[in-house]
Amino acid sequence: MTDTQASVQPAFLDACAAAIGAQHVLTDAHDTAPYLADWRKRYQGAAFAVLCPANADEVAAIVKLAHAHRVAIVPQGGNTGLAGGATPDTSGAQAVLSLRRLNRVREIDAHNNTITVEAGVILAEVQARAADAGRLFPLSLAAEGSCTIGGNLSTNAGGTGVLRYGNTRELCLGLEVVTPQGELWDGLRGLRKDNTGYDLRDLFIGAEGTLGIITAAVMKLHPQPAARVTALAALGSAHAALDFLSLAQRYAGPLLTGFELMSDFCMQLVNRHFPQLRYPFQARHAQVVLLELSDNESEEHGRALFEKLMEAALEQGLVDDAVVAENLTQSQAFWNIREHIPLAQAQEGLNVKHDIGVPISRIGHFIEETDAEIARTVPGARMVTFGHLGDGNLHYNVQAPEGGDPKRFLAENEKTLNRIVYDNVARHRGTISAEHGLGQLKVDENAHYKSEVEMAMMRAIKHALDPLDLMNPGKVIR
Amino acid sequence: MTDTQASVQPAFLDACAAAIGAQHVLTDAHDTAPYLADWRKRYQGAAFAVLCPANADEVAAIVKLAHAHRVAIVPQGGNTGLAGGATPDTSGAQAVLSLRRLNRVREIDAHNNTITVEAGVILAEVQARAADAGRLFPLSLAAEGSCTIGGNLSTNAGGTGVLRYGNTRELCLGLEVVTPQGELWDGLRGLRKDNTGYDLRDLFIGAEGTLGIITAAVMKLHPQPAARVTALAALGSAHAALDFLSLAQRYAGPLLTGFELMSDFCMQLVNRHFPQLRYPFQARHAQVVLLELSDNESEEHGRALFEKLMEAALEQGLVDDAVVAENLTQSQAFWNIREHIPLAQAQEGLNVKHDIGVPISRIGHFIEETDAEIARTVPGARMVTFGHLGDGNLHYNVQAPEGGDPKRFLAENEKTLNRIVYDNVARHRGTISAEHGLGQLKVDENAHYKSEVEMAMMRAIKHALDPLDLMNPGKVIR
Repeated sequence: MTDTQASVQPAFLDACAAAIGAQHVLTDAHDTAPYLADWRKRYQGAAFAVLCPANADEVAAIVKLAHAHRVAIVPQGGNTGLAGGATPDTSGAQAVLSLRRLNRVREIDAHNNTITVEAGVILAEVQARAADAGRLFPLSLAAEGSCTIGGNLSTNAGGTGVLRYGNTRELCLGLEVVTPQGELWDGLRGLRKDNTGYDLRDLFIGAEGTLGIITAAVMKLHPQPAARVTALAALGSAHAALDFLSLAQRYAGPLLTGFELMSDFCMQLVNRHFPQLRYPFQARHAQVVLLELSDNESEEHGRALFEKLMEAALEQGLVDDAVVAENLTQSQAFWNIREHIPLAQAQEGLNVKHDIGVPISRIGHFIEETDAEIARTVPGARMVTFGHLGDGNLHYNVQAPEGGDPKRFLAENEKTLNRIVYDNVARHRGTISAEHGLGQLKVDENAHYKSEVEMAMMRAIKHALDPLDLMNPGKVIR
Repeated sequence: MTDTQASVQPAFLDACAAAIGAQHVLTDAHDTAPYLADWRKRYQGAAFAVLCPANADEVAAIVKLAHAHRVAIVPQGGNTGLAGGATPDTSGAQAVLSLRRLNRVREIDAHNNTITVEAGVILAEVQARAADAGRLFPLSLAAEGSCTIGGNLSTNAGGTGVLRYGNTRELCLGLEVVTPQGELWDGLRGLRKDNTGYDLRDLFIGAEGTLGIITAAVMKLHPQPAARVTALAALGSAHAALDFLSLAQRYAGPLLTGFELMSDFCMQLVNRHFPQLRYPFQARHAQVVLLELSDNESEEHGRALFEKLMEAALEQGLVDDAVVAENLTQSQAFWNIREHIPLAQAQEGLNVKHDIGVPISRIGHFIEETDAEIARTVPGARMVTFGHLGDGNLHYNVQAPEGGDPKRFLAENEKTLNRIVYDNVARHRGTISAEHGLGQLKVDENAHYKSEVEMAMMRAIKHALDPLDLMNPGKVIR
């Protein structure tokens, strides 16, 4: 910390205390600690204060003060991000601004199929309030019990419903944002069509708090499906899974809401660490797909549709075996298998995680070629490949060799593995961050793979909106 | 034209001729005339040249030259815009850049459900090429036989499939763009999930060529539905239509692809001018709704679903009468009624058109209150109210009183009518341009209704990307 910073902070903190109440300006190390490390404990930052405003006006007041005092602000929601985007740097010169107290559901408009929520509302709460109104809020992901909608928006979160409902971006109609100058922009529109100028909404979505702070949003709701039906299919290859996806989409159209791929090794890991989750097939198969159908008529109708699909797929030789869940309990059991893959990975030991995306049609080639290159270059590495095939998004993770020292293995090979994976992603015109964002984790990787013309436009926009670089500096772009 | 401009133009034109061939640099008045007036003949502009590059590299070369010579460029696609966005100003100092020769379909990737097209490809051609590959490209609008996909993107066109498939923005995965400095940005990604920085794609979409020139795009395809089924329902009010929409979405979920509202006066106009299009109900009704269902199973299944829905709606008293089309011919006949409303309006005489949007839940109130205020303020004005109810988008048009002089009526009342309509739109937190864009027609209206903080951000972005204001100046923002 420089002397100037040290002298700025007391005046800034006094003004903040006056604006939002001294009890909401945390400076004690014990109080601030939970805000300074990320969820996966990859990053440990420092901050001279954690500020907890209660509403958008208070956020605006703080950002105005930060602007006047030249204090850098790190916005934070549920602190469940996977790329360190909400963790301050280690200088101690930044302040964290927590959105958690902005936790009101402002309005539900059932006829408009919208819900207006403040940034700090927990995702599960948005889902529950929508359900109470007879509607579906389809965003769903592992951290839904603790992540906030503001964080979901700032990282354009994905999850398991993207195939049918899109990412968080596609679920948002309007935003309220505090600009880097501390002005409040009321863009809370609940409109399906609006063509009156530049799309500022989508610029703030996914910007990870580097262009301003989202304080509220109008989110889209959907009709509640009458039933959800789940099935598992066993296949010989990822290529077969692609043909099967096309067939499933032809049969089920927009009713197909999930299509998750899991490799044989994923199944083995789950079997090893959670044997109570019964693998439903007699034999082992190269790939297993979990399908979900959201039916607007009835469970019977959904099951019948899946039975017809499976029959056709078996006949065409795309699928080797299949089970349609007979009831909700079995559906849940199928999802449990899918959801226990990361947990089984953790049990198995340290690993390298990737959140990559490629065009859906390239998935088979990507897996084959990257698997082969890793086998050549890093012998023994075990690939844990699973993910949202219907979105072209794979969690293409690497487990250390059986029996070795995983810590040493990773220390020696993580960089090489990342380079192989990301180079192959680039060759297939994919993305190094499909649904987790860049945060501080992938800022440099991103600059490496993006074209200079794209980076220059991003920098121009950042500089135009936040010329003092006070909004979450060091994240997304440098 | 100033002397400086007159001296710049020859050098610029010579350089353009060298870059794209002299025969593609049009300067003769006879050759340039078709590019200088908009489709509705509201605007007559001038241009010292119309430039017709063949590909993205040639577009980049021209824009580089324009940048060097400080020449303002007006990009143009099919020239079917409704807001004068592709028409140059009257100074003669601007050059039109036509994208029509960029007309290749570069790739169809059926497994990825994407089509990569150049900006000048006609919308109907995109639809046809998708159908050839067994896929649906769902964007559909009146001008589809002559509008281009680049124009659709630049105006974020809407149309009749938005309820299910979204606007053009939601159908686009990636873009290729020539920046105002003449650099080519390859953002042609075919990814469903990608979170690696600011959303430049959506910034260019809907920017009407003021931030750069879209030269190609990766567009999303959908599975072809097995059948489309259409129905008409007669209702007592727009409020009832809202409840009916909720019911229809509950029954049909994402299979409901169209929900169009048409007032009794629309039906009367169509009856008067196109009596061969038989009005299907015995009695007159305040509102008629056209519903479309895209079924992934079969026509029988779709018809059965509609029959069940209509039964429930009649029982609940939401709907007074209903007809489900018995075959494709009758479906087409129902759509014909809807599509002949603007034609019947034209037959009836001059009128004022609006393309407004409000939250769907506000439509009934908006119509009642605005109808009443217009009746009070401009007696005799006849409201032609129809549109995409499922999107909250109304073509809330005003026809002159029966028997009077429409030209004089409009000259005297257009400003007052616009003010009443747009003030009511603003009161209901709506938009003055739902699907047509701003062009030059609504630039000032837009600045009037938008907040200063939003206008300032728009200006900052425009200035950051196009500091010399050479990209379609005078459109969208001043």
